[in-house]
Amino acid sequence: MKKYVYAFHEGSADMKSLLGGKGSNLAEMTNIGLPVPGGYTVTTEACMEYYEKDNAIWDELLQQIDKKQMELEEEMSKKLGDPSNPLLVSVRSGAAVSMPGMMDTILNLGLNDETVEGMAEITNNPRFAYDSYRRLIQMFSDVVLEIPKYKFDTLLESKKRDKGMKSDTDLTTEDLKELVEAFKGVVKKEKGSAFPQDPKEQLMMAVEAVFKSWNNPRARVYRDHHDIPHRMGTAVNVQVMVFGNMGDDSGTGVAFTRNPSTGENKLYGEFLMNAQGEDVVAGIRTPRDIEELKNILPEAYHQFSEVARSLELHYRDMQDIEFTIDSGKLYMLQTRTGKRTANAAIQIAVDMVEEKLITKEEAILRLNPNDLDQLLHPTFNEKALADASLITKGLPASSGAASGKIYFTPEDAVKANAAGERVILVRNETSPEDIEGMVASSGILTAKGGMTSHAAVVARGMGKCCVSGAGDLNINEAEKTMRIESDCYGEGDYISLDGNTGYVYSGLIETKDASLGGQFLKLMEWADDLRQLKVRTNADTPRDSAKAVEFGAEGIGLCRTEHMFFEDNRIFVMRRMILSRSVEDRKKALDQLMPMQKEDFVGIFKAMGSRPVTIRLLDPPLHEFLPSEKEDIEKLAKEMEVPFNRLKEIVFELKEVNPMLGHRGCRLAITYPEIYEMQIRAIMEAATELKQKENQEVIPEIMIPLVGEVNEFDYVKELAENVIREVLEDSGVEVPYLIGTMIEIPRATIVADEIAKGAEFFSFGTNDLTQMTYGFSRDDAGRFIKEYRDKGILEKDPFQQIDRKGVGELMEMAIERGRSTRPDIKLGICGEHGGEPNSVEFCHMIGLDYVSCSPFRVPIARLAAAQAAIKHS
Amino acid sequence: MKKYVYAFHEGSADMKSLLGGKGSNLAEMTNIGLPVPGGYTVTTEACMEYYEKDNAIWDELLQQIDKKQMELEEEMSKKLGDPSNPLLVSVRSGAAVSMPGMMDTILNLGLNDETVEGMAEITNNPRFAYDSYRRLIQMFSDVVLEIPKYKFDTLLESKKRDKGMKSDTDLTTEDLKELVEAFKGVVKKEKGSAFPQDPKEQLMMAVEAVFKSWNNPRARVYRDHHDIPHRMGTAVNVQVMVFGNMGDDSGTGVAFTRNPSTGENKLYGEFLMNAQGEDVVAGIRTPRDIEELKNILPEAYHQFSEVARSLELHYRDMQDIEFTIDSGKLYMLQTRTGKRTANAAIQIAVDMVEEKLITKEEAILRLNPNDLDQLLHPTFNEKALADASLITKGLPASSGAASGKIYFTPEDAVKANAAGERVILVRNETSPEDIEGMVASSGILTAKGGMTSHAAVVARGMGKCCVSGAGDLNINEAEKTMRIESDCYGEGDYISLDGNTGYVYSGLIETKDASLGGQFLKLMEWADDLRQLKVRTNADTPRDSAKAVEFGAEGIGLCRTEHMFFEDNRIFVMRRMILSRSVEDRKKALDQLMPMQKEDFVGIFKAMGSRPVTIRLLDPPLHEFLPSEKEDIEKLAKEMEVPFNRLKEIVFELKEVNPMLGHRGCRLAITYPEIYEMQIRAIMEAATELKQKENQEVIPEIMIPLVGEVNEFDYVKELAENVIREVLEDSGVEVPYLIGTMIEIPRATIVADEIAKGAEFFSFGTNDLTQMTYGFSRDDAGRFIKEYRDKGILEKDPFQQIDRKGVGELMEMAIERGRSTRPDIKLGICGEHGGEPNSVEFCHMIGLDYVSCSPFRVPIARLAAAQAAIKHS
Repeated sequence: MKKYVYAFHEGSADMKSLLGGKGSNLAEMTNIGLPVPGGYTVTTEACMEYYEKDNAIWDELLQQIDKKQMELEEEMSKKLGDPSNPLLVSVRSGAAVSMPGMMDTILNLGLNDETVEGMAEITNNPRFAYDSYRRLIQMFSDVVLEIPKYKFDTLLESKKRDKGMKSDTDLTTEDLKELVEAFKGVVKKEKGSAFPQDPKEQLMMAVEAVFKSWNNPRARVYRDHHDIPHRMGTAVNVQVMVFGNMGDDSGTGVAFTRNPSTGENKLYGEFLMNAQGEDVVAGIRTPRDIEELKNILPEAYHQFSEVARSLELHYRDMQDIEFTIDSGKLYMLQTRTGKRTANAAIQIAVDMVEEKLITKEEAILRLNPNDLDQLLHPTFNEKALADASLITKGLPASSGAASGKIYFTPEDAVKANAAGERVILVRNETSPEDIEGMVASSGILTAKGGMTSHAAVVARGMGKCCVSGAGDLNINEAEKTMRIESDCYGEGDYISLDGNTGYVYSGLIETKDASLGGQFLKLMEWADDLRQLKVRTNADTPRDSAKAVEFGAEGIGLCRTEHMFFEDNRIFVMRRMILSRSVEDRKKALDQLMPMQKEDFVGIFKAMGSRPVTIRLLDPPLHEFLPSEKEDIEKLAKEMEVPFNRLKEIVFELKEVNPMLGHRGCRLAITYPEIYEMQIRAIMEAATELKQKENQEVIPEIMIPLVGEVNEFDYVKELAENVIREVLEDSGVEVPYLIGTMIEIPRATIVADEIAKGAEFFSFGTNDLTQMTYGFSRDDAGRFIKEYRDKGILEKDPFQQIDRKGVGELMEMAIERGRSTRPDIKLGICGEHGGEPNSVEFCHMIGLDYVSCSPFRVPIARLAAAQAAIKHS
Repeated sequence: MKKYVYAFHEGSADMKSLLGGKGSNLAEMTNIGLPVPGGYTVTTEACMEYYEKDNAIWDELLQQIDKKQMELEEEMSKKLGDPSNPLLVSVRSGAAVSMPGMMDTILNLGLNDETVEGMAEITNNPRFAYDSYRRLIQMFSDVVLEIPKYKFDTLLESKKRDKGMKSDTDLTTEDLKELVEAFKGVVKKEKGSAFPQDPKEQLMMAVEAVFKSWNNPRARVYRDHHDIPHRMGTAVNVQVMVFGNMGDDSGTGVAFTRNPSTGENKLYGEFLMNAQGEDVVAGIRTPRDIEELKNILPEAYHQFSEVARSLELHYRDMQDIEFTIDSGKLYMLQTRTGKRTANAAIQIAVDMVEEKLITKEEAILRLNPNDLDQLLHPTFNEKALADASLITKGLPASSGAASGKIYFTPEDAVKANAAGERVILVRNETSPEDIEGMVASSGILTAKGGMTSHAAVVARGMGKCCVSGAGDLNINEAEKTMRIESDCYGEGDYISLDGNTGYVYSGLIETKDASLGGQFLKLMEWADDLRQLKVRTNADTPRDSAKAVEFGAEGIGLCRTEHMFFEDNRIFVMRRMILSRSVEDRKKALDQLMPMQKEDFVGIFKAMGSRPVTIRLLDPPLHEFLPSEKEDIEKLAKEMEVPFNRLKEIVFELKEVNPMLGHRGCRLAITYPEIYEMQIRAIMEAATELKQKENQEVIPEIMIPLVGEVNEFDYVKELAENVIREVLEDSGVEVPYLIGTMIEIPRATIVADEIAKGAEFFSFGTNDLTQMTYGFSRDDAGRFIKEYRDKGILEKDPFQQIDRKGVGELMEMAIERGRSTRPDIKLGICGEHGGEPNSVEFCHMIGLDYVSCSPFRVPIARLAAAQAAIKHS
């Protein structure tokens, strides 16, 4: 027979999945001898079986609860419902994972019209007895009977108002008796039946309410948001009541063993005298700082701080503790690992290592790498945020907070920024032409596009706040308006974006800047000592490169060359190059672009010093550089002295049905070799010049994109080597260099052995590899990936976290085959996944040499790499 | 030391790659004792080394040629350049593969001002000597010195005109002497130096000219077109001259051992008396039927027909033979396997089996499956074609010939067809909306799109002629004009398309219909006995299905359901369904579509009888069904009573950046389950109705497209089974059915083991699988695939022939893994490759159960499957 109910002394901390967090910790505290009121836990399995049995409590469970209840009554020498010696209990939910949104607590269960009299007599405190009874009716009605809370609150408030009282504690016994009668009247009116007088019935109804609350909409939303499986269930804890509302030597409180906001090693918490737990949470009275307890009840305070210290030592982590003082005696009601801010997490981890409480490895494993993101970006001032009005929600595409005036075109954004405005660029979706407008903006909001859309990728690269795919937005660029349902926002209106949550607010919200403390640097140093993966960055400008080095990047893993061509003075030459109808014309335009490209590389090489720099040759389809709007084409035609119709035709000809799978990457180089020749010349001349003029060692790694067939690679490699040979001979200096390829086409993973014969490195382009392996366009897949996750088809968005089973197997195949022909081939990843902790772990497991990610994710990758090394050592 | 030169008696027929076709056959004929003038062959390896050595003849080769030349002179007791006893030779090219475009022949080499006198004396025939000399100068100048041929022809013609002569044979010795002088003058004038008098120099120049001709542009184009590698080289044959121009008992001719056009078993050829080989080809005199030789030189004729018969027996195939009669004596100058029409190929193969000359297996292996295509489609009348004017060239997207009036819109095409016109539909590219226009047309011409574009795929399915991607076309639909450079064609102008070559002609060209003879049926019967692969068809209509059954299809491997929704009365309901904003509205529209779908399936099931029918559920993204032009949206908005702007917005929202990788296939079913539910209901109700009313057994195979993750498959399968259960219970009859999936997403091949747990069959969708494995969009890749093939990056277009190394390996992986969880899983292919012989062979090798292809390719697949079974038995 399955055991569904455990007395506290039967459990332990490691039974969390069965007893829930609360239950297992109550058991643990009981076993280590702390003052915990007795009780028992109904398991999470019982909860799941309840659902399987079509939401009904079954006999066996009923019997097991009865049995434990009887044992508890024996132990306490009190009986549930016994008017002369009544036992009161609390009923609380407790899942394995801490989770708001579920039913929380019912206190004082066991009171009814008879036992309340008994309690009054025994405690010789009728006021306490009736206060407890009115609380039970109020809580029970709220969470079990689902009667709106305000119906009771208003009665309570009007009673206080009538009598001119400020605080609940001013209410007399008579007042409370009257309230009890009024509350029972509400129940009768709302439910058509009286408040249940049978304590057993109360108990079973409460247990069932906890079970049900596991699946209420708020709880489901929370689990979806935090990737918590729905099939875990919650436990139910039934515990003997102790009373913080027994008088002036009673009270209740919550405290953290260290400050959860700053990490300071000092008790942090608050308490209320003569109150029950929910009063602290409800904020009816203002709680007092835990320090004050020292003066009020010095012994209880002393005892509590001892218990708090021993709990931290026992659990070896900062604890979040609930306690009650009943007539001067301290009771522990809950302990759990305390939630903390990223800042506090680092502070506590480093302190605990220095206190020799935990090892460096444990400190590192305790941090959530993604939380570091908060530290690197501005955040909203929390108080200001509390008053803000949420207007819609998109995807949290790039971290940080931004507040500013709406502009709808990149040109307007640039102008406003130049005039000193803080700009939020609002677009349906961005394209490479918008780059300058994005640079000029504090934040970017798009109506379309997913987590890896152009806006998202570029914003992350810049460390700029971005909310993408806010599907409710209705943007009219012509009218310069943005509608959300019936609300309309125009140019110059203030909005605020939270890139960590995807929330969009109306109005201006104050932000505060990021700052990195010394503890952060210490922790990262430990991480660097432990990790095996190198961490590089994806950066296309000297500014981004410098930022990345500051964050600890050890090289550039992906320098995209396409963004370099969008600057105003270059795009024209680029367009002329594309529109050339002869090789000679194209070469002329390329000759103009060459010195600009060289300058780009000189800047990046300087910023990176002697660190390796992987440069990807031109990748996107050429039509991305061409104007698409009629007016822009007209303008270009005039500038280029080409007939409008001819130009329109060329633009149309270059348009592709599926640009993602089109004429791009090395395919361009095979039809227009002169483009790559120019780029390679620019790279090598920049490197030789730095060597000659500044004696700087540069290690360019030339990366050929979109290779799917060995002949493509060999063709471009030969072309590259010819140019390199020329440049080196002309300059007379030696520059070490590598030539390698992106692995991003599924076929490349299959023929990796052939490619590796010529390629000195592989860099996994997991964005494209995921697109092609799944057949998902990342520009379009946002529409159904959400539905896929809702319906359980996909557990994770494969663009956010590497799909180990599919994409991962192809990566492993490529590595195995690549090494079969070049055992020392250098292996890296430069897709967005390179900055995502779970993916970084996978990269460690399959033996990559490095990951590369946007500058602001470099610290995350460093930490994740260290965690991976520790987990798999 | 490498042997570069072989005497004829040193070679044999199996040394074709080294000695070329001509050389190896001359060796073979020498060895079996036929009358072949002596000579030697310079190898193809020598030719390739010549290119490697920067186009220079090297000493060793020179010495080897000298040596063989000396041996030949000894054998013949004549010497090259000996005025008293001159040896004359012919120099001819001969690659391993028969290939027009290269230098062909130089006869009479060895003549100069001195030896011509010697020849005149020895033969006592000065007219012959000078005729030979003027021929040498003419041919040598043309092919070695590259002096335009007409410069000599005009001199010859004016000489005949001056003298009032009709034929070359009327020229006197004096005339010929004068011509020789005049010809030498031309050489001097054109080249600045005299016609080379040293016979050795003549010989080496001729050998080099043959080498060079391997790489002339015509030869390269021919090889590209016929997929012949460029790295083979040509051999050079040097052979003692015999003279068909020695007088009235001399002559020369060409004959086939059987009729190459009809296959009739009877000598077929022509000859000229007193002539040399090039006269037959040049058409200066009209050659006579070989039969006539019987009367003129009965003995030579008799001997020739004996030799012809023995050559056919020796080579066991129809031969194409060149011969010369020198003063009554027969000499064999060449034999090779004769080219023949598809009709003749079948006739000859079947006849030879019946003559017990070859086995059925050999007969089948000798046919090129692709040639069958000619037999199934109309072709141009050859004479009419000869006068036609070629205006441009596109891709040979779908076989057959079509001639008709140009129409630019599907609506105009439908109207014109209804009015009895023959229509050629001319479009930039077609879309599913154009279907009715395509049905109404005799042929389709598009400016964009490749071999697997919408136009190409649909046309092949219909067996309709299509030329796609004719890039020179400049179509203006608004003006209803089509320009090719400066020429302009309007609506109603006649053009003609050749779907076998991709050629487009102006004007009307007569076509002749296809007809299939009894021999064809006999051969296909043999093929069916031998093959292991089943052959199904891709068909979406009862008409196509019936056609396919006629061509031998054993089931439907792919019935696409999307085309069914484009009919006029349906598209409106379909659009309403797509534009529904609630599940209820969508269901209402689907309820209207259901009976129509059911009717479709009843029709197809009836046409297929008890053969299995695989139905693919809706696959394309929904926006394909929506109008894209402003006017069409306006019209629809009016019909639907929806505001124009709202409709435009929805259409815009549904638009995708990369539709190929977008919201389509089973992804639709996961967001809109009711669509597939309707389709599955329609399929099963059609099947149960036929079973009930007509007692017809139907085996529907329900195919889920675009699965990449097992949860997708399981979700749709469950949905399907619920509907099926309902339909079967309601009808009370049993219908056997299968549920399976397309394997077309690379990830599906990796997780095939998981998918196969639920899937009863896999059908490889190699079109999409190729797109995603290579990262090529088939709509766009046409632009660079040509360049890839030109530059040797890709040997084959992977959309035409399965890429065994990449896509093939994924298929093998899917099969292995699929069988690991379901050993008896049914395996097929329904991509375009299913009708391509090389791919069919691969399907046989990896153990598929069937291939499926468009109706008109079913016979090709049957033959290819038989060939594969024979080759791999």
